[in-house]
Amino acid sequence: MLKDLFTPCLILDRGKLDNNIRKIKSIVSKQNIDFRPHLKTAKCLEITKILVKEFGPRAMVSTIEELEKLKSSGINDFLYSVAIVPNKLDRIAKNLSNNCKITVSVDNISTAQELVSFYKSTGNRINAVIELDLDGHRSGVRPYANDQLIKIGKCLDEFDLFRGMMSHAGESYGLSNAEDIKNCARNEADQTLMAAETIQKAGINCELVTIGSTPTALSGCKNAGITELRAGVFMFFDLVQSGVGVCEVKEIALSVLTSVISYNKEIDAIIVDAGWMALSRDRGTYSQETDYGYGQVCYEDGTLIKDVIVTNVQQEHGIIQVRKGGNAELPYFKPGEVLRVLPNHACATAAAHSSYNVVNQKNQIIDVWDRFNGW
Amino acid sequence: MLKDLFTPCLILDRGKLDNNIRKIKSIVSKQNIDFRPHLKTAKCLEITKILVKEFGPRAMVSTIEELEKLKSSGINDFLYSVAIVPNKLDRIAKNLSNNCKITVSVDNISTAQELVSFYKSTGNRINAVIELDLDGHRSGVRPYANDQLIKIGKCLDEFDLFRGMMSHAGESYGLSNAEDIKNCARNEADQTLMAAETIQKAGINCELVTIGSTPTALSGCKNAGITELRAGVFMFFDLVQSGVGVCEVKEIALSVLTSVISYNKEIDAIIVDAGWMALSRDRGTYSQETDYGYGQVCYEDGTLIKDVIVTNVQQEHGIIQVRKGGNAELPYFKPGEVLRVLPNHACATAAAHSSYNVVNQKNQIIDVWDRFNGW
Repeated sequence: MLKDLFTPCLILDRGKLDNNIRKIKSIVSKQNIDFRPHLKTAKCLEITKILVKEFGPRAMVSTIEELEKLKSSGINDFLYSVAIVPNKLDRIAKNLSNNCKITVSVDNISTAQELVSFYKSTGNRINAVIELDLDGHRSGVRPYANDQLIKIGKCLDEFDLFRGMMSHAGESYGLSNAEDIKNCARNEADQTLMAAETIQKAGINCELVTIGSTPTALSGCKNAGITELRAGVFMFFDLVQSGVGVCEVKEIALSVLTSVISYNKEIDAIIVDAGWMALSRDRGTYSQETDYGYGQVCYEDGTLIKDVIVTNVQQEHGIIQVRKGGNAELPYFKPGEVLRVLPNHACATAAAHSSYNVVNQKNQIIDVWDRFNGW
Repeated sequence: MLKDLFTPCLILDRGKLDNNIRKIKSIVSKQNIDFRPHLKTAKCLEITKILVKEFGPRAMVSTIEELEKLKSSGINDFLYSVAIVPNKLDRIAKNLSNNCKITVSVDNISTAQELVSFYKSTGNRINAVIELDLDGHRSGVRPYANDQLIKIGKCLDEFDLFRGMMSHAGESYGLSNAEDIKNCARNEADQTLMAAETIQKAGINCELVTIGSTPTALSGCKNAGITELRAGVFMFFDLVQSGVGVCEVKEIALSVLTSVISYNKEIDAIIVDAGWMALSRDRGTYSQETDYGYGQVCYEDGTLIKDVIVTNVQQEHGIIQVRKGGNAELPYFKPGEVLRVLPNHACATAAAHSSYNVVNQKNQIIDVWDRFNGW
């Protein structure tokens, strides 16, 4: 019984998780391409094992902690997504083995040179891709910065440390219709292929050309020359992804179980024990057509309560109200009854918890899976 | 050397922590009143021990996890801040002992009755205060709701489970000048005393009349009849509290150490390895006079870099730029150099990490203290 769980806690719907994984598998299988799931969303050994079974022994990670805690899943080819800083090489090297190849990403010549020095002085072979910056928002080399690309590529290739090109269409999260997402996916592929071509023309082999974000990966856009697609949040989905249009709200596999503390008649609000500590402060739906506040509220069984959202959060309190302009009436719940909240952003909400309570279609708890944070 | 730490991670300045504790102690010691620190900010055994030494064996907690993990500090009088839901009583009762008295808060008669039933059926004496809602924002009984107060009070008092009144001037975080904070503190005390009087006139003893928030507690407002003051974030302080006006930026004891990934010339930005996972998504300074984005940037030694803030965050990336309208020029940092980021909200930023790297005035690491999350 969900009611017996100590709240707040995470509920993971196993059927929806499986469906979401099948959904991307069916898209990827239509292309002659590898799929590399991003482990940063789930940070969970059991889920990683499912992904290895479905997609093979390769994964993307956002922290070395993920790499260390999840390598027992059978993954032997890790790609570390955050462009590397030199003082992390030592710890990465400790995880190298015949059964564990690790590729980092670099976006500047200084770090590429450090990687080469590290190899020369320790003999530890940490491979690298060049991170591309498609939208000018953060780290990465611009795909048209030919001199920079070739300089970094040659520096790494001389010692056989170069693997290829990596990009991520982060802009896709800001879109909301299929046409724009297709265009974004096409652009992601085109720009990455252009940069790969620049490198190849300079006589450097590009074995790996990897792109992806959940929206663009799900768009089904095909591109010869791209060797690998990546995505992460697809396994859980969330309200932001439903706003982007790549899933329906009913496909969201993750929710937070919370207990009703009391009913505040003065402001027509239900006060619950899930605040920003349990839901996160993510407000990713704020700029979307439907703003879900800090989350969409559901009954204990997962049935959505129309127009009822978490309108405010404090550290350990959530304020549930009918959304502004909503037609619904706020149902009454007794202190101690439980509700479920669908997250704006699954990565952020999952990060607030240390385990998943896995439920079947009847909302029976069939597993408890640990998850972790940290770097 | 801070440079040797694996980034991102928390830095806690021991000298500033001690000063901040002294600051509130000097205010409290001028009043004939107990002080109850809130452990939700630090969630750390070593810090709790310091607090016990300074203020005695009483504390406020926001989770049962805090209670369980911190009772070995010597605290024997816990007040659980979040109005209780019945299914948490079992676990609370397991922590009761001659050396551990636990008081919960209630805000409705149904939960008060559950507490009494629990006592009658198990013999476990969990005491309770009535939580007051001063600003109509979340849980709590309104201080003028005399019938409700007396009903709950009598229900608990019949079995000697009633301790008193608890309130929290949450509104004080939205203020920004000393006069308003004093008024808010006066109101917090007056409203709470009014409710306590209502209860006492009904023949119920009010042993505990506890109020507080960091801004109102630091205001030095004196009130006969109030038995206890509470505060939490005062020990670290943060940018929000500096915006409220109760500390200076240089008093902030907590920061996040982060490594420079690269320099993005196109958008004049430094890209670092601290994103929302390390800084939190808290934007508490957004509505204040000075908006610090996702945090104020400092050099490795803690010296503030004027007008340089974290303007955007992704999961594991922070984007550092000169604030809009700022006069400063963005200094150049090589990939691998480290910076420090002062948090908007210390509770949220600390929650993203599992330990504090404690430094002395020379920025030498003198201790590593564990912290925890969870409920």
